[in-house]
Amino acid sequence: MAERLIFLTNDDGVGAKGLERLIEVMRPLGHIVVVAPESTRSGMAHAITMSSPLFLREVRREPGLEVYACSGTPVDCVKMALDHLIVGKKLDLICSGINHGSNAAINVLYSGTMGAAIEGSFYDTPSIGFSLDDHSLDADFEAAGNIAREIVDNILGGNIALPLCLNVNIPRLRPEAIKGIKVCRQTRGYWKEEFFIRQNPANRDYFWLTGEFINHEPEATDTDEWALSNGYVAVVPIQIDLTDHAQLNPLGKILDR
Amino acid sequence: MAERLIFLTNDDGVGAKGLERLIEVMRPLGHIVVVAPESTRSGMAHAITMSSPLFLREVRREPGLEVYACSGTPVDCVKMALDHLIVGKKLDLICSGINHGSNAAINVLYSGTMGAAIEGSFYDTPSIGFSLDDHSLDADFEAAGNIAREIVDNILGGNIALPLCLNVNIPRLRPEAIKGIKVCRQTRGYWKEEFFIRQNPANRDYFWLTGEFINHEPEATDTDEWALSNGYVAVVPIQIDLTDHAQLNPLGKILDR
Repeated sequence: MAERLIFLTNDDGVGAKGLERLIEVMRPLGHIVVVAPESTRSGMAHAITMSSPLFLREVRREPGLEVYACSGTPVDCVKMALDHLIVGKKLDLICSGINHGSNAAINVLYSGTMGAAIEGSFYDTPSIGFSLDDHSLDADFEAAGNIAREIVDNILGGNIALPLCLNVNIPRLRPEAIKGIKVCRQTRGYWKEEFFIRQNPANRDYFWLTGEFINHEPEATDTDEWALSNGYVAVVPIQIDLTDHAQLNPLGKILDR
Repeated sequence: MAERLIFLTNDDGVGAKGLERLIEVMRPLGHIVVVAPESTRSGMAHAITMSSPLFLREVRREPGLEVYACSGTPVDCVKMALDHLIVGKKLDLICSGINHGSNAAINVLYSGTMGAAIEGSFYDTPSIGFSLDDHSLDADFEAAGNIAREIVDNILGGNIALPLCLNVNIPRLRPEAIKGIKVCRQTRGYWKEEFFIRQNPANRDYFWLTGEFINHEPEATDTDEWALSNGYVAVVPIQIDLTDHAQLNPLGKILDR
C-alpha cells in the first residue's frame, strides 16, 4: 500500500499542545504535513486574509513529518497547504485541532478549528475537526488523541461518501471514563454576551467579549451538547448549504417579482 | 406608530460608499444606529475578537442617526451594538452592507457582511445582508439602494417567521435594467485558489490569495448565481444548522459505540 498523505492544522497555533498530540497519534498512519497559524487564531471562523500578504516558515522537518507556520488564519493555512505546498498529490485525510475548548453547538460558526475543517472538505478529502472540552493550555489530551485515532481509523477503513466534514467534540475525561461515541446533530442555542469594560491608561474604555452559551433545547438527547455533557464523544456531520429550504416558498410569495 | 429602531453594519468599514447608501435609504424608516469596522474587514466571515480588547469611537451624531466605528470584526460590531449600545430596546431591523462585491454561493461562508447578518438574526430581529456584484470602491449603488429599501419594506410589512436572515445579492445594473427579484438557493461550488507569489525587500516569499469561483451546477436555474448572472436580484434565506442530516444514519453505523 502506498504511504498515506495527511494534512494537519489548528487554530491554537503551531506550538499548541493539542496539535502536538494530533501529530503524535497520526504519524504512524503516513506522511504528515502541518501548516498551522504562527500564534493563536481562535474565533477566526472561516476568515481569510484578503488585504495583506501571507508568510510561510518551516518549523520542523523529519522523516515523515513537515511542519510549517503561516502568518494567516486557519482557513489560509488550508489553502496554503492544498493550493501551494502539496498541489497535485493525492491527499488521504485532513484533520484540524485538537482544539483547546469545545466547538459543539453554535461554536461551529465561530471556530477557526472548524473553519479549517470545513475548508478542507472542499478538496475531495475526508476532513475532521477535533476539539477537547477543556480550554486550559495544559489540558490532558490523552483521551482526545485516542479518540481522534479511533475515528480516523474507522473513517479511512469505512465506505464514506464525500464531501465529508466532521465536528468531533470530546469530553474532558480520562480515557476509561468516556462512555462512547455518538453521531448527533448540532444543538440549537446562542451565546448571551456581556462585555467586560475597563479603562486603559489614557482613560479610554476598552471592551472584552465574555458570555455564556444558552442551550435552547436542554431536554433533547440527540444533540452534541447532550452527548458531550453526558460523557460521550459528539460527532456532527457538517454540510455547507446555508439555504433555509423551508423558507423558500413563503418568502418567494412576499419578495419575488 | 412608535418610531422604528434600525441597526446597520458592514465589513467594508465605516467610511464605505455602500454603507452610506444604506444609511440614506433606511433613514426615512426610523432611528438608525450604525456600528461598523474602523477599516475594511472583508473576508472576516463569522470571526470574533477573543484575544484582544475592542474599542468604540463615535463618528457622527445627528437627529435620527448615530454612527460608531469599532476596532473589531463585523460580528464584533453586531455584539457591541446589541449587547452594549442598544440593550433592552426593541429593535425592528438589522441590515449589513451594502457590500462592495458579490456574496452569492459559497462566498456566504467567507463574507464579513454575511457573518454580521447571520449574527444579527440571533437577536429575534429580521436581519438582511446586501451585496452589490461590483468590487470597485466607487461602484454605483443607486439600484442596490432602491432594491434594499424595497426588500426591507416588504419584510417589515409582511408576516415573517423568525429567525430570518437573508443573503441579498444585486447585479451590477442600472435600476431600470434589473429584471426582478428571485428567492433562490445557494449555488454549489468552490473557489479554485492560486497564490500570487513575490519576494519582499528581504528576499522572503510572500503570498497573496487569488482565485476564481467554480460553479458546480452552471445549468441550474434556481440558484443565486443563475439569478445574479441573468439580471435578477438573488435572495437566499439563511439557516445556521450545519448538521448534514442525511449523513447521520450511515455515519452512526460506522462510528457509534
